[in-house]
Amino acid sequence: MQTIFEIDSALDMHLHLRDGDMLKLVGPLTSETFSGALIMPNLVPPVTTKEAMLSYKQRIQEACSEDKFTPHLTLFFQNNYSYEFLEDIKDEIIGIKLYPAGITTNSETGVASMDVEVLRPTLESMSKLGIPLCIHGETNGFVMDREKEFMPIYESIAQAFPDLKIIMEHITTKDAVELLDKYDNLYATVTLHHLLITLDDMAGGMLKPHLFCKPIAKRPEDRDALLNAALKAHPKLMFGSDSAPHPKHKKECCGCAAGVFTSPIALQALTQLFEENDSLENLNAFVSLNARRIYNLNPVSKKVKLVKKDFIVPTTYNFKGESVVPMYAGEVLNWTIQAIED
Amino acid sequence: MQTIFEIDSALDMHLHLRDGDMLKLVGPLTSETFSGALIMPNLVPPVTTKEAMLSYKQRIQEACSEDKFTPHLTLFFQNNYSYEFLEDIKDEIIGIKLYPAGITTNSETGVASMDVEVLRPTLESMSKLGIPLCIHGETNGFVMDREKEFMPIYESIAQAFPDLKIIMEHITTKDAVELLDKYDNLYATVTLHHLLITLDDMAGGMLKPHLFCKPIAKRPEDRDALLNAALKAHPKLMFGSDSAPHPKHKKECCGCAAGVFTSPIALQALTQLFEENDSLENLNAFVSLNARRIYNLNPVSKKVKLVKKDFIVPTTYNFKGESVVPMYAGEVLNWTIQAIED
Repeated sequence: MQTIFEIDSALDMHLHLRDGDMLKLVGPLTSETFSGALIMPNLVPPVTTKEAMLSYKQRIQEACSEDKFTPHLTLFFQNNYSYEFLEDIKDEIIGIKLYPAGITTNSETGVASMDVEVLRPTLESMSKLGIPLCIHGETNGFVMDREKEFMPIYESIAQAFPDLKIIMEHITTKDAVELLDKYDNLYATVTLHHLLITLDDMAGGMLKPHLFCKPIAKRPEDRDALLNAALKAHPKLMFGSDSAPHPKHKKECCGCAAGVFTSPIALQALTQLFEENDSLENLNAFVSLNARRIYNLNPVSKKVKLVKKDFIVPTTYNFKGESVVPMYAGEVLNWTIQAIED
Repeated sequence: MQTIFEIDSALDMHLHLRDGDMLKLVGPLTSETFSGALIMPNLVPPVTTKEAMLSYKQRIQEACSEDKFTPHLTLFFQNNYSYEFLEDIKDEIIGIKLYPAGITTNSETGVASMDVEVLRPTLESMSKLGIPLCIHGETNGFVMDREKEFMPIYESIAQAFPDLKIIMEHITTKDAVELLDKYDNLYATVTLHHLLITLDDMAGGMLKPHLFCKPIAKRPEDRDALLNAALKAHPKLMFGSDSAPHPKHKKECCGCAAGVFTSPIALQALTQLFEENDSLENLNAFVSLNARRIYNLNPVSKKVKLVKKDFIVPTTYNFKGESVVPMYAGEVLNWTIQAIED
């Protein structure tokens, strides 16, 4: 007898697809199994115009060559977006992503100040137009404190714009989990890897460059808080892989690039994690239903059938000159994708 | 007019010289400028017999080919050392180094239990014979808490053996600095890199494998406490570089080896650091006098004259097939060694 689990129309609410050959490599690895994904706009240059956004969307659709996958595009936040511009673009995007300047990969042109009054014009327009705000919430403080130090900024925006949907992206701390319950208009995404690892896994034994990510994985009590919220499918928490491919050599031979590549193994690993914690009944809420409700999405139907059988994770995924190393490279997960159906 | 500073008979009270070609590469880089060094015994296999110790000492002396440098050998702690063995070897060694099993490079055969009663026979002999105990003080807990969690173990040994000199090796936390003042028989070494960096420098921006070390660099308040204690030349604190060479490829292409290589740049960098903090008058105490007093050493005279002039740190140091990358590789320090005199 086989043990089967079915995921219905999975959504990845925080995804990096990059561009060019890398997009052609990683795009299909998401679109094969997910019904939709929220696509990050931190290209070089960042996606700040309608033309750039629509052109990027087209490149994604071509790369994914998959009619059963919807890329939900975002804009890169800027202080000077006019109401008219936002009104014109609002039906084409799912949200706007705000980066403090220089805080992560390709965020150099992010906002220099997180002062609510500085951000007010754009945020007011977004609030009126019902455009969600996705935030990379880190200060430039000590690496283990950056998210915690950002909490008052989340609070100030949540208070100042009670009608604005604010998504705390890739949360990594107990503090962020607790903040979810304090403001009606605060939501969050959490990655697979932050449910699994702490700083120990990256730097406690040998150094593991492939587990180096931003925000950095935190303390055991933080990981436990995130995992508990995910396992019970906290209604304001969504899965967002933050799957961030970097060329293999950039991860290994200078050890510099931040990001964990999880797209092709996320559903298998999540199923294993939820099963191990007797929470499989909540996995569809975490990986699909919560996002549908929060973002008002009606994804195309795609049923991923997983069977409890060993899956040996490939050591790399390759396309032309690009090569990326996934999380669990060469290791064994105990759930395998058996079939994908309408 | 040139600004000159003189360091008189520098001592490195925590040094890894390895063996073979690596010893031949790194040995002279210490013996050129230091008068003596406490040599760590974590070879493969570890140094646990008189024969192994004397043979290693001879290889060090040959590699260093320097009559003005004294390698002070240590034994790798084992629970089964007899009083007679220790009595016989005591004049040949400067101390015994205790590693919890598996806590760092080549420490697999360290002690499995840090219980005082388990350690008592050997520690009692050491106490009677006046052999100092050097400890790598980390638990196997969460990487940022390992040293802090070890504090009660230091306390239990300090209390149980009031006549035993205990050196907390390469301390990295405010807690350890504070413990120095609580027990008469507790001393410590601190590295150059732990006076300079926090976890931020290793993982706050790009990942820097060359700054990955054990114990891992901690929080800003920890670094500040260590630096303050060093700058005032706390009388129970000694310089111990923990300079730990690993082949270049092991640091970069799998990013796995822990250790920062500082021997050839330590005196220049310390002079810069102490000068920047208006504490040059305390540098000789930190880097020599404290160790002489604590270990009752009378080092051969070696005066290192540093001049305030740019020193471009080599990107690698090489010997035969070995290549190691120093801290500050390719960067500029503002003190240069001008002359070394008797």
